Amino acid sequence: MTSQIKEERLDYMPGGKRTIFQRNDVFSYSMDAVLLAKFVRLPSEKGKIIDLCAGNGAVSLMMTLRTKAKIEAVEIQPLLSNLAVKTMVENQIDDQVRVIEANLLELDGKVQWESYDVVTCNPPYFPVTAEKGKNINTHVSLARHEIACTLEDVIRVASRLVKQKGKLAMVHRPERVVEIFAAMKAFRLEPKRIQYVHPKKDKEANMVLIEAVREGNPGLKTLPPWVVYDDDQSYIKEFKKHYES
Amino acid sequence: MTSQIKEERLDYMPGGKRTIFQRNDVFSYSMDAVLLAKFVRLPSEKGKIIDLCAGNGAVSLMMTLRTKAKIEAVEIQPLLSNLAVKTMVENQIDDQVRVIEANLLELDGKVQWESYDVVTCNPPYFPVTAEKGKNINTHVSLARHEIACTLEDVIRVASRLVKQKGKLAMVHRPERVVEIFAAMKAFRLEPKRIQYVHPKKDKEANMVLIEAVREGNPGLKTLPPWVVYDDDQSYIKEFKKHYES
Repeated sequence: MTSQIKEERLDYMPGGKRTIFQRNDVFSYSMDAVLLAKFVRLPSEKGKIIDLCAGNGAVSLMMTLRTKAKIEAVEIQPLLSNLAVKTMVENQIDDQVRVIEANLLELDGKVQWESYDVVTCNPPYFPVTAEKGKNINTHVSLARHEIACTLEDVIRVASRLVKQKGKLAMVHRPERVVEIFAAMKAFRLEPKRIQYVHPKKDKEANMVLIEAVREGNPGLKTLPPWVVYDDDQSYIKEFKKHYES
Repeated sequence: MTSQIKEERLDYMPGGKRTIFQRNDVFSYSMDAVLLAKFVRLPSEKGKIIDLCAGNGAVSLMMTLRTKAKIEAVEIQPLLSNLAVKTMVENQIDDQVRVIEANLLELDGKVQWESYDVVTCNPPYFPVTAEKGKNINTHVSLARHEIACTLEDVIRVASRLVKQKGKLAMVHRPERVVEIFAAMKAFRLEPKRIQYVHPKKDKEANMVLIEAVREGNPGLKTLPPWVVYDDDQSYIKEFKKHYES
């Protein structure tokens, strides 16, 4: 127990308005979570939000800077959900964010189906293959590989969680956009907004933010892309302002 | 006949290496055609290329700057296909580019199915609705609205034209990417490369270039976007260099 506590640290989130408990031996928050929390369109006060694959709570944490709506954060791994709980207490937002330690495939009785205005999700990005998802730290594997849930699982569950015209916003790898669109369409979620993130202006995108609306009309907006770094490996001014706001 | 000739003019293509016959009363080439001709991956000499919805031949014309492979250009409207023929003669590439005046839904006997390395297409962008596609110049309507063929028609025909691992490259509106991917998947064309074009760096994309491979493996590359104009409405340097090369 002592060693476990020792491994924890309290980090600042970008912008310095929130702090987050992290551990070296589990998945830490990444830029993806922060950008998702800034990308999604949120209700102001009265809505309900649920964050799937919540990890140590970074997406929920950052969304509290933009909304007073109640947020439920679902995470399967106790180590991570415990960090998330501590983080919400530390930031004095534990009345706004409720952490639910649960498998998103077993949410019956833990959530209210078809009731959420917004579902967010920063899911595992990589399919399980023979080479991957093995012989590496299990906590990290679960967060990075589709071991506990697949892309289709996430989208199917999200589609059940949102109310009519409710939104699913997710961050993922651009390689999988074709598959993401197909799964969304299959579960009546219409992709409405997409934004790509390129590490540099002459590089392929390595991240994509997508927002879909349940029973939405077809028609996708492709937002101006984010370019993260200039040639000196510094954040580009516009990106830095957005990321650290 | 005299008045028809009068209306024709010979314009330079961007970069000034090719000229094109155009008329005020029919659809003129646009930036979309030029970017498509530069985006698509082309065989060098031995391959076969077919360009659908060829209009007055701009895509084929610009591809001849990049390949010696034979090109067939299919256009339904005689006025436009006649301009294309004159353009190829004028540029002394009529032995490389064969213009076929035909409806792409009636290509039996005019083309060799499953034989092409590459299909290109700059199709009509807009679905036919009650308000649109009516009471406007018919030549322009056919080029802009899905009157003679739909998006699904184009993709289905393209899928029949290409050989195994052959490519379809098209330019379209970003609003319709979800639908384009779905149609491509339905006809065994796997989207492999995508590139967005934004009029300015802080504006939504208004054009998208997509390349799919017949029986390709899933996995999409999102290329660095093009941003066309700076705040002074001038071409951005990198774009100008690409566009006028």
